[in-house]
Amino acid sequence: MPNGLFSIERFIDDLARFSETTDGVTRFPLTELAAKARDYITQVMEQMGLSVWTDGAGNVHGYLAGSDPSCTAPLVLGSHFDSVRNAGKYDGVAGIACALDALDKLLAQGTLLPFPIEILALEGEEGCEFKSPLIGSKALTGQLSPEALKHIVNSAGQNYYQQCQAAHLDPDALQTPYYHSESMAGFIELHIEQAATLDRQGIPLGIVTAISALQRIRIEFHGQANHAGATPMNQRADALVTAAQFIHQVPTMLTEYGSAAATITCGHIECSPNRANVIPGFAALEIDIRDTSQAAIERLSAGVKETVKQLEHASGITTSFTIMGMGDAVTMDESLREQLRQSCRRLDIAHMDIHSGAGHDAGVFAQVAPTAMLFVPSIDGYSHNPKEFTPLHFLEQGASVLLDFFYHYQYQ
Amino acid sequence: MPNGLFSIERFIDDLARFSETTDGVTRFPLTELAAKARDYITQVMEQMGLSVWTDGAGNVHGYLAGSDPSCTAPLVLGSHFDSVRNAGKYDGVAGIACALDALDKLLAQGTLLPFPIEILALEGEEGCEFKSPLIGSKALTGQLSPEALKHIVNSAGQNYYQQCQAAHLDPDALQTPYYHSESMAGFIELHIEQAATLDRQGIPLGIVTAISALQRIRIEFHGQANHAGATPMNQRADALVTAAQFIHQVPTMLTEYGSAAATITCGHIECSPNRANVIPGFAALEIDIRDTSQAAIERLSAGVKETVKQLEHASGITTSFTIMGMGDAVTMDESLREQLRQSCRRLDIAHMDIHSGAGHDAGVFAQVAPTAMLFVPSIDGYSHNPKEFTPLHFLEQGASVLLDFFYHYQYQ
Repeated sequence: MPNGLFSIERFIDDLARFSETTDGVTRFPLTELAAKARDYITQVMEQMGLSVWTDGAGNVHGYLAGSDPSCTAPLVLGSHFDSVRNAGKYDGVAGIACALDALDKLLAQGTLLPFPIEILALEGEEGCEFKSPLIGSKALTGQLSPEALKHIVNSAGQNYYQQCQAAHLDPDALQTPYYHSESMAGFIELHIEQAATLDRQGIPLGIVTAISALQRIRIEFHGQANHAGATPMNQRADALVTAAQFIHQVPTMLTEYGSAAATITCGHIECSPNRANVIPGFAALEIDIRDTSQAAIERLSAGVKETVKQLEHASGITTSFTIMGMGDAVTMDESLREQLRQSCRRLDIAHMDIHSGAGHDAGVFAQVAPTAMLFVPSIDGYSHNPKEFTPLHFLEQGASVLLDFFYHYQYQ
Repeated sequence: MPNGLFSIERFIDDLARFSETTDGVTRFPLTELAAKARDYITQVMEQMGLSVWTDGAGNVHGYLAGSDPSCTAPLVLGSHFDSVRNAGKYDGVAGIACALDALDKLLAQGTLLPFPIEILALEGEEGCEFKSPLIGSKALTGQLSPEALKHIVNSAGQNYYQQCQAAHLDPDALQTPYYHSESMAGFIELHIEQAATLDRQGIPLGIVTAISALQRIRIEFHGQANHAGATPMNQRADALVTAAQFIHQVPTMLTEYGSAAATITCGHIECSPNRANVIPGFAALEIDIRDTSQAAIERLSAGVKETVKQLEHASGITTSFTIMGMGDAVTMDESLREQLRQSCRRLDIAHMDIHSGAGHDAGVFAQVAPTAMLFVPSIDGYSHNPKEFTPLHFLEQGASVLLDFFYHYQYQ
């Protein structure tokens, strides 16, 4: 097949068919459907003229050599091809499609760049079926060892290492990290925004400034279970009431302790005995807080802790505050961001700086190489939802920026 | 055994030993332990000189004839001897003990009253193991037929009717209601308060004015599940946030729509998908609201519904409001209350009118005969808790009021 015939739309629609569900896309890592998706991506990349192989963690690599043998480390582009349950068809796949489209057009124009380019279709980003996110990118960069893959288990109790072997992949080959600062010139990921900021402002491209720092916090409230009928309102120590007051104070906490991009999500709640006619003696929240930098997340976390203490003093309910997990903030590379801005300007595409509250493989690659991200609009901000939608012209604009970027990329 | 030797303290402590648990009393209806408690109560009543029998629903009756054969309907006193899990030892049993103490003293004084007196130890009041409260009193008054007992099931899937038969009782004998307006002159129940109002005010006796009307209401909140990181705060439709705002507004609802004794308890909450890093798309509350009269509960319920509607308008979260169950308010008999007040005055015992938020067997008997209730203090208001405590002198004061009441009771 000659170059220049790649279709973003067909690629996305074809991959969407490899799904467990008809209500949105469900394609968990290392399943039969994942293997079919790998085969399809391999075939598309090979038709384009790339050297294609699948690594030991299930990531597909499509490699195009450069003209200058001294440029050994490739510029890497891509995103993930796994999904959550009942996902949209753009999350992840859009980034692979746009990178392939840019490379296909480059090849169609007969241009050979001095440096190699590698397109990555990453496995296991979502952390949905296997309860750990960003597996493919972490395995490639030595942030997850083959041994560690044995401890990441899916809902059937199978571990990621096992499932790699069952798929005829060799996870032990990643004992030596494939990507490190010498083997990767840079990483660019295009992704749908997963929120409505670009859509609402009518701006087709966002250039990501940073990926949020996050903390997962558990807050417990210990009151006194008691009879709902017999106990007057002024004689209660209702744990759920205090938990609800915490949730009610989220906007105040964000204003007082967070940056404009900060988020606090109370996604998990427990209540005991959880019977309509018993005053709750115990409640717990597991919350997700995010902000733009390490300093910002620490300020926000301290503010949350202070609020919990104030609620304890005001209510007489005993509380506890435990940080269960955290992720560092990742700043995108300023030079790459500026080069992407220049491409937008050359192509006269409106763009804005944007913050990423969600984690991405780009955050993993940023540990080893200069990294940047481009966001394209999600209409109405639907994410992890069959209603997710990004019109084709936005994807084409994103791909055209990547193509321009190829031509002007300052390889170092 | 001569009369006059009954001990309230020993009766309560002896019954507390018939318990599944050592951490508080656990004595579910129609169990082996319930049979042992029945045998013990039977023995105590027989020693006192009463005619004793157990009816088809497991209630123990101790009958003392009167001197006037034209007074056929007994004055009935008593309370329940079943418990919740890990209960205190006073709840229910205190009322049987005080009634027996009063009757024992009456007999010791050699007094024969014109009218018969019946002491009742009632089974199945709590609705804890069998998920329906007030079974014994309802079965005795025709408010639960033998057929209906077949549909009341415990956690092992056994129905109340079956379990009566297994305990060698004959539930079908209650096909004709045992108590009706002709076969019961009145009912008096002494019970611990289960709250701290009397204790805090230092008043040894409460004369109950009414038992609350109640409604069980389910409120659902339908928002949009979304990514906790990717979705900015101003682009969310978080169902749990709106549920928390509802809980936060409980004090306002009580002030605006409730009487001074009204309660709103949010005891049950659901959240979906209930994962820390996903914005809740769905939340539900099951709440218990109580107020002093039918008009009051309807006003409170309408206020709750209005608040839910306002939250829907303010948040964009779709809501639903469903009344799952209700119980009518029960007013205590004014003549009996006045007679109890007069006994308190004669004995120079401080007393106050008090409202019962909790349901009691007295509410069931009030459907067929004039009924009144006496509350004795619960220290610090502990209820359904091993820490529940009522000092002996309060129980003795309660029993002395019952004894005085016997002498002055206006039999009709």
